[in-house]
Amino acid sequence: MRFPDTSKPVLAVTMGDVNGIGPEILAKALAGDVPWKTCVPVVFGSPQALEDARRFAPGCPPAVAVSSVAEALTATGGVPVLSCGNGGPAPAPGTLDPAAGAAAVVWIEGAVRAAMAGQVRGLVTCPISKEAILGAGCPHTGHTSLIAAMTSSPDYRMCLFTDTLRIIHITAHLSMRDAVEAVKKDRILKSILLADAALKRLGMAAPRIAVAALNPHAGEAGAFGCEEIQEIAPAVREAAESGVDVSGPHPPDTVFRRAYYGEFDAVIAMYHDQGHIPLKLVAMDEGVNVTLGTSIVRTSVDHGTAFDIAGTGRARHESLLSAIVMASLLAAKGFAS
Amino acid sequence: MRFPDTSKPVLAVTMGDVNGIGPEILAKALAGDVPWKTCVPVVFGSPQALEDARRFAPGCPPAVAVSSVAEALTATGGVPVLSCGNGGPAPAPGTLDPAAGAAAVVWIEGAVRAAMAGQVRGLVTCPISKEAILGAGCPHTGHTSLIAAMTSSPDYRMCLFTDTLRIIHITAHLSMRDAVEAVKKDRILKSILLADAALKRLGMAAPRIAVAALNPHAGEAGAFGCEEIQEIAPAVREAAESGVDVSGPHPPDTVFRRAYYGEFDAVIAMYHDQGHIPLKLVAMDEGVNVTLGTSIVRTSVDHGTAFDIAGTGRARHESLLSAIVMASLLAAKGFAS
Repeated sequence: MRFPDTSKPVLAVTMGDVNGIGPEILAKALAGDVPWKTCVPVVFGSPQALEDARRFAPGCPPAVAVSSVAEALTATGGVPVLSCGNGGPAPAPGTLDPAAGAAAVVWIEGAVRAAMAGQVRGLVTCPISKEAILGAGCPHTGHTSLIAAMTSSPDYRMCLFTDTLRIIHITAHLSMRDAVEAVKKDRILKSILLADAALKRLGMAAPRIAVAALNPHAGEAGAFGCEEIQEIAPAVREAAESGVDVSGPHPPDTVFRRAYYGEFDAVIAMYHDQGHIPLKLVAMDEGVNVTLGTSIVRTSVDHGTAFDIAGTGRARHESLLSAIVMASLLAAKGFAS
Repeated sequence: MRFPDTSKPVLAVTMGDVNGIGPEILAKALAGDVPWKTCVPVVFGSPQALEDARRFAPGCPPAVAVSSVAEALTATGGVPVLSCGNGGPAPAPGTLDPAAGAAAVVWIEGAVRAAMAGQVRGLVTCPISKEAILGAGCPHTGHTSLIAAMTSSPDYRMCLFTDTLRIIHITAHLSMRDAVEAVKKDRILKSILLADAALKRLGMAAPRIAVAALNPHAGEAGAFGCEEIQEIAPAVREAAESGVDVSGPHPPDTVFRRAYYGEFDAVIAMYHDQGHIPLKLVAMDEGVNVTLGTSIVRTSVDHGTAFDIAGTGRARHESLLSAIVMASLLAAKGFAS
């Protein structure tokens, strides 16, 4: 198949858990011009849930149920929604339901297959409940590991991007014990090179990359931990020798601040919360989760299902808009093409 | 001895490393009214270094060398400076010098002895270089462990306080490996109780305390780590049963934001950087380091020696001012009395 407009990539937008805020943020985002101007969106989810959520976003076009991406591209007068044979349970906002988890997985799998087949140029994902997908028998800890498994891309990296901070995590959903064990030179080096390549493709001529230390005060020359000396510094050195503008290991408690105020274009974080804590503090609703190192373009909102406010109309859709724009940009720049 | 004015506690203010920004921030702080209105300051440091630093703060009164706290309290026309028999090397801003480290240790030791003898009501410390004190043969990793050892208070807690965030760390200068091992129920429980008592003595009737998790997403019910289930939740439960307004374990990546926006009065952090990263991001120069659990009052600036800008006049003294005000308040409230 051919894309109808090469300047506007076709993107699969997965609805996530129908009982979370996914349907609402989708309706709110699609009520505005931005998604339609930047991409051709095809929702993978429940037409009924999108219809229900339109009460919070009257400007959102009606849901149009379609049965294939090809049909979605010719659908008119609404938002094409592909349920992949599983419309999910009737939405019950705020409820943990394995049936909702099962449907969310089916939609993600359908979207990944469409991306691998070249029918869509990338994925944007709304939040799922890990407990619900676990309850549905899915063995993955989240979108990223599921997508990595389906695309045979075990060496992926979870990144959080905002206007002011770009953070690449060397690992994601691991316990702190396991995360510390994963602080190894090769993994760090690969993260630096992936970040450098991504930022260059996004238009930065010479991105300045800072590598955070693992231990407080960067270990104080080995006094509180040796990973800086044995693993991180050698990775930084090797990346620098290959021509990357990279520095570190920097003390973790100031490197994110330095990046936030413009000294660095990106920070390589040694574990999930090292990057998530500062980013969510200053950019809770604007962050985009970008997966690097897989064979398909994928971005995501940087928040969860927010069951506590689902169905109230209080959800914010800024992160989803950012995720759509970022996926469009990555697809247009030929990422994972 | 008697205090000259019980409403203004006598405080020892240690100069720290003479080659760092300590002398400059001291001169800048003492050039204003705040320290003089809130306490009776006695500097433990080098009279010469303070004199040198007055070029950046002409309003600072001249240094008056004294040989005891008693003499300091009767000194007039300047800032009393007690060198404890070690005037330190001639200041060479930005230079790592074990002789500067040795002098810094002598001043801290003199100030701690004065506090233990009841001559001063508390300590405020300017930054030292851990490498310089190590080079001078001091076995401690910083002020806090030195003070804890001298006062036989092994079970101390490092806290960072600002107007918007109050963070109590269950451990401080440990490698991440050791910090994870130290996430134990008793240590967490003691931290909650220390924090609750401290905030109540500072005037909060019912402080709302949040306990951060160790693992990402608070471990997702054991999927990424079991410390939440085995150690943190039991500590929270026991503290709550004793009447503390405490909750958690909360996902680390949002709990600091929630506290920052007013939902909690304090957060118990599971390791040094978990608290330091968010605090330094939003309050780099206003934070005060407070040590709880020792037998003397002690506060500190929340930054280091900043050798890179020492001697340039660019150092900011807000954190020192905050530390002086906080120590005065703690002393007045009868902490560690």
